[in-house]
Amino acid sequence: MPQTKILLDESEIPTHWYNVVADMPNPPAPPLGPDGKPIAPQALGAIFPEAIIMQEVSGERWIPIPEAVREIYRLWRPSPLYRAHRLEQALGTPAKIFYKYEGVSPAGSHKPNTAVAQAYYNKQAGIKRLATETGAGQWGSSLAFAGQMFGLEVRVYMVRVSYEQKPFRRSMMQTWGAEVFASPSDKTESGRKILAADPKSPGSLGMAISEAVEEAAGRKDTNYSLGSVLNHVLLHQTIVGLEAKKQMEKAGEYPDVVIACCGGGSNFGGIAFPFFADKAAGRKLRLVAVEPTSCPTLTKGKYAYDFGDTVGLTPLLKMYTLGHDFMPPGIHAGGLRYHGDSPLVSQLYHEGLIEAVAVPQLATFEAGVQFARAEGILPAPESNHAVRVAIDEALACKKSGEKKTILFNLSGHGHFDMAAYDKYFSGELEDYSYPEAAVAESMKRLPKVG
Amino acid sequence: MPQTKILLDESEIPTHWYNVVADMPNPPAPPLGPDGKPIAPQALGAIFPEAIIMQEVSGERWIPIPEAVREIYRLWRPSPLYRAHRLEQALGTPAKIFYKYEGVSPAGSHKPNTAVAQAYYNKQAGIKRLATETGAGQWGSSLAFAGQMFGLEVRVYMVRVSYEQKPFRRSMMQTWGAEVFASPSDKTESGRKILAADPKSPGSLGMAISEAVEEAAGRKDTNYSLGSVLNHVLLHQTIVGLEAKKQMEKAGEYPDVVIACCGGGSNFGGIAFPFFADKAAGRKLRLVAVEPTSCPTLTKGKYAYDFGDTVGLTPLLKMYTLGHDFMPPGIHAGGLRYHGDSPLVSQLYHEGLIEAVAVPQLATFEAGVQFARAEGILPAPESNHAVRVAIDEALACKKSGEKKTILFNLSGHGHFDMAAYDKYFSGELEDYSYPEAAVAESMKRLPKVG
Repeated sequence: MPQTKILLDESEIPTHWYNVVADMPNPPAPPLGPDGKPIAPQALGAIFPEAIIMQEVSGERWIPIPEAVREIYRLWRPSPLYRAHRLEQALGTPAKIFYKYEGVSPAGSHKPNTAVAQAYYNKQAGIKRLATETGAGQWGSSLAFAGQMFGLEVRVYMVRVSYEQKPFRRSMMQTWGAEVFASPSDKTESGRKILAADPKSPGSLGMAISEAVEEAAGRKDTNYSLGSVLNHVLLHQTIVGLEAKKQMEKAGEYPDVVIACCGGGSNFGGIAFPFFADKAAGRKLRLVAVEPTSCPTLTKGKYAYDFGDTVGLTPLLKMYTLGHDFMPPGIHAGGLRYHGDSPLVSQLYHEGLIEAVAVPQLATFEAGVQFARAEGILPAPESNHAVRVAIDEALACKKSGEKKTILFNLSGHGHFDMAAYDKYFSGELEDYSYPEAAVAESMKRLPKVG
Repeated sequence: MPQTKILLDESEIPTHWYNVVADMPNPPAPPLGPDGKPIAPQALGAIFPEAIIMQEVSGERWIPIPEAVREIYRLWRPSPLYRAHRLEQALGTPAKIFYKYEGVSPAGSHKPNTAVAQAYYNKQAGIKRLATETGAGQWGSSLAFAGQMFGLEVRVYMVRVSYEQKPFRRSMMQTWGAEVFASPSDKTESGRKILAADPKSPGSLGMAISEAVEEAAGRKDTNYSLGSVLNHVLLHQTIVGLEAKKQMEKAGEYPDVVIACCGGGSNFGGIAFPFFADKAAGRKLRLVAVEPTSCPTLTKGKYAYDFGDTVGLTPLLKMYTLGHDFMPPGIHAGGLRYHGDSPLVSQLYHEGLIEAVAVPQLATFEAGVQFARAEGILPAPESNHAVRVAIDEALACKKSGEKKTILFNLSGHGHFDMAAYDKYFSGELEDYSYPEAAVAESMKRLPKVG
């Protein structure tokens, strides 16, 4: 039997990130300020270090990965690429299925790829502390780990309802030395205001962002750090696709289709962009972003300028959006509950260069369980979206007899999501259809610009 | 900087397990029946397949690993060996610290190494179902995974209090297709008896063993499977040490000391026995088993014949024991709460060929947190015992200036143990001293044989 795992040596960790902007047919639409005019990159200097801002606006194809960042990557990178022999057999498909596995990182997903880079650049800029928000805790724990690696203090504002219901991610952050506060908190003016109005507020990601940004903007020694959406975040994640390309080459294969789940876009961009470079050069392949039917940003949203956060603090980003105050139903794939999407992913989708598909919750868990029973690994609910579509592609091959090569990104393990599996097995998990009325409402509040 | 991870290719997965019996100065003390006479291996035929029984009593040095078992091992093996560069720096030690990481398996520890082998041999023998017990769920989930790989049904009797308090390991077992029952259950006579006497019984490992053994003994299609203690289990685990030896050789190093936590002994035996072969051949090195001060079997127990289970169903095993009905305090390293120890480990300890040390709970968590902050990985509470002693050895080197090479086994990750870390951080975790009076009591009930 051919190899199950295609491994790379530490010396093969890529030396550069890939910037998709260099190969896009059109320049990225610029972020706009409240006045509807493009904002100057320097305007972000209060919360981001200059190196990050330069990456955010760069058009260079290759951006060097600092040696100190590669040094930390070596704790888990290169991540393995698997050939899913046993899943193929279980499906009876003639397709070849490969998956890149990012769950081997300390935090258990792809998120540390950018957290480590962001912590490094902030440390270089003399910053002492990072502030960020987190929902269920995946991003907060990644930044806690990264901060610890470079001796930066990390302060995480964790949505109160998650803080109380999900103590394990919180303990993980504390293990890596981060301070974690339930948001809304009494540490910031935003938090105190919200608490004054509603002392029992359960919090929201939007509120937590406000607290973290306020703290970063108000303190010289503190910056803000974001886990998805922005160009520099997707840039850092391209290490996933760059490694996967080397590994596919070692396996003597090239994918016909590359699949990844897509919330803010960093997981999809991470694996897909390096393959997009080949597509831009004329190679035929499909790049498929998978989102939940309950939050179908690309497949049902509008391509328009909108705020990145719920309360409207960020610059306006041109992206597919369901409206910045749209509240997605409570699916367990928390990382995919985002009203917007990465401007880079959005633009490529708008120009017809990538595909998107939306899948319902129960079908993703069904796929995740089938995957776990064949391959052993327990996927995160977000990753189950990619598993679902990879299995669907393989089953289509079974019907058609095509021997396609399928590659997907298994973005993380589900060790902290077993409560969701528990609900799935006990029949308590719901499917949500497209919340058309709610989206129509929030769309009315799209800012009038651009 | 030298490599962080020393990896092996799939083709380097060992082809044979190593049987330490071949290199022990004296033959192993035989298990005894209730009459005090050595039992015939065939007596175990009601619950074990013949291939396993033959391994249990084998004196052959090398036992081939079936190709079908190596095929499943390839899903995560060879496991990585790490050089703990960042931990060394944090400690300021001249010692070199290496660790083998078994947390990469689907179940998150070394346990699947034997679960997969046991499932295979049972499948070969025409068995359809495996019954086993589990406490917190680590062993049950490993056997659930292994059973799924070979199409065997798996029935797990899970101690009721864990079943109710720790639903996540239960969901994990269900994801891999196992049936999980809270024990005592109404599925067996033993269970029904216990429930009749106490309908609210919280259960115990001893009770769960009774249920699983009863089911296996009473059904032709069903066998029993055990996760530690017995010779064949330790045999299967030697794949850990065999890989580690190859990896140390690749790194150009040889350990002065090999450290592992020790409950039933399969984790310690797994990494230490292949190195013991060198010691038996004259090489100078130390092999150190680490146990909790609250359950100090090797360091405080008596070397005597005793039952392997609480209620006295098993053959009598010659081992270090605290008495078969000793109830260890409720430390979070559930895998180390065992009154006895592997007869092979016990005999080597009795003959002065290996060392043992007991460490208190708080010091192990302190070590685990220090490790996580340096290396990223969050260790299981059991593994923290090995981390503690590895750090202590490294700090002794700092004092003495010795440049020792330290190797320890990081037997698993702590993703399902964050509640224990949570208690550690909130100051709720207790230290337990040696429960001298309780041990004196249980020692009175040692069977009078041998």
